[in-house]
Amino acid sequence: MSDLPAAISVREVGPRDGLQNEEPVPTEAKIELIDRLSATGVRRIEAVSFVRPEAIPQMGDADQVWRGISRVDGVRYSALVPNKRGGSRALDAGVTEIEVVVSASDTHNRKNVNRSTAQSLDEIAEIVSQAHQRGATCQVIVSTAWGCPYEGDVPEARVVSVAARAVGDGADSVSFGDTTGMATPGRVRRLVGEFRSACAETPLNLHFHNTRGTGLANVLTALELGVADFDASVGGLGGCPYAPGATGNIATEELVHMVEDMGIATGIDLEAMIDAAADAEQIVGRTLPSQVLRAGPRTRTIPA
Amino acid sequence: MSDLPAAISVREVGPRDGLQNEEPVPTEAKIELIDRLSATGVRRIEAVSFVRPEAIPQMGDADQVWRGISRVDGVRYSALVPNKRGGSRALDAGVTEIEVVVSASDTHNRKNVNRSTAQSLDEIAEIVSQAHQRGATCQVIVSTAWGCPYEGDVPEARVVSVAARAVGDGADSVSFGDTTGMATPGRVRRLVGEFRSACAETPLNLHFHNTRGTGLANVLTALELGVADFDASVGGLGGCPYAPGATGNIATEELVHMVEDMGIATGIDLEAMIDAAADAEQIVGRTLPSQVLRAGPRTRTIPA
Repeated sequence: MSDLPAAISVREVGPRDGLQNEEPVPTEAKIELIDRLSATGVRRIEAVSFVRPEAIPQMGDADQVWRGISRVDGVRYSALVPNKRGGSRALDAGVTEIEVVVSASDTHNRKNVNRSTAQSLDEIAEIVSQAHQRGATCQVIVSTAWGCPYEGDVPEARVVSVAARAVGDGADSVSFGDTTGMATPGRVRRLVGEFRSACAETPLNLHFHNTRGTGLANVLTALELGVADFDASVGGLGGCPYAPGATGNIATEELVHMVEDMGIATGIDLEAMIDAAADAEQIVGRTLPSQVLRAGPRTRTIPA
Repeated sequence: MSDLPAAISVREVGPRDGLQNEEPVPTEAKIELIDRLSATGVRRIEAVSFVRPEAIPQMGDADQVWRGISRVDGVRYSALVPNKRGGSRALDAGVTEIEVVVSASDTHNRKNVNRSTAQSLDEIAEIVSQAHQRGATCQVIVSTAWGCPYEGDVPEARVVSVAARAVGDGADSVSFGDTTGMATPGRVRRLVGEFRSACAETPLNLHFHNTRGTGLANVLTALELGVADFDASVGGLGGCPYAPGATGNIATEELVHMVEDMGIATGIDLEAMIDAAADAEQIVGRTLPSQVLRAGPRTRTIPA
């Protein structure tokens, strides 16, 4: 394990990806959660999504949230955009890091945005260009990268070709999303290897779900491959829309707890993140799946 | 990952370790669960514990359960014993594989059995001898191997010295138990390495908890070190007595789901194990923590 990264960069996606998959919560609660997260030491926060309120009511207040948060030096705030119109809104609001999503599975992409993967990639090329013209960066997130809930397995060659097309169109970085928790360590090794062969220089972020319990095992495999950029969601906010009661994103405090104990720095104060997870649980009014929130960190002993 | 084991041997501990940490259930339900597990292809089942009923009511019917199960060829059934008297009862009942536990943490051992680790090791030497005289094998389980809920960290040298003492006294194999889920991949690597240096020839079984989400990441690390014997509990039966609501044992179907997808054979039929987990959930009347039980295996798709 001597070649593991000395540090990783965690992107906290609870306020966007997490809350988008929960019942709607008040704008003020979102702003408070983001501000609380900004104080944990996390350096990247996916804050909002500039979508149509009619499409996703959970994110209908993106402009207010984006204006309302108290920015902290050293923290990068990003926004997801679904299309060119959302890209314009985000750039007008002053976002300098935008993300766009395309699904490697055609069926999943059509279900989500009613067009093919290829059609989405055409629009993404324009969004990347739009971002660059206005001084922003754009990450392309390839979802269903380890499988699709409708199609099942998605060939690695297809996932890499979607990513490579986006890189060719100027994407500043790529993120692979394990949309429904279908990744396992062997698959992580293969996809990361194939992507590196195709796009050796492109920064790679990984987004794992814990839907089938493999979230941290997949992170461990990626660490062994030198990947150092990971998404995680405070408390494990955000369920899995395809399996009632199943969990979604890996929990930030579980990720931090494991890697810090392995000597890998995150910059994140674990106790502060656990406190933020407890707040998140209050905000959504349901028990969140984070095990470290429930049990506490390994250093928390009880009186004999 | 080319040097991962081609196959692993899973010991299903739900009927004993799992049910011992749940509300008591009827004898018949235990027998049915064990018989159901015997049909999944799992080759080792920890069936009962020969303890005093006053001490642990959940296991008060060990003799009836042991007599009642329908043995399947190729499946090894084992029993835990707490002391010499329990050892005699197990051997009288015809058990040929017994397990004894000692805690590497003196405080934890005193809390459990009101004596020091050294005193327990003295009695274990006698139990091992008793087992061998009657043609049975004895595994020594070293609990709190990656930390103690009272003491915190337990030095690896101490854990290994406890194990080495038991090996010197004739233990046929050793199992390290992560009693409250304090293990992380770096710690697994260190302890397994130190144990191998001290007792190169002794078979090693590992027992992980998922209390802090690291269960399968720890398994992955152990696989990379060539360990091929693991405990797991159907559905994740058995909570953590030290943290209300927290999970205990890794779930058998989550383990099988991950390693089989990596090309590592378990002999276990995943769908049959998931069905057994659903039964286990009915038996204990609470939602079990297994994610694969909730979400289904990665191959389970939904209609587009």
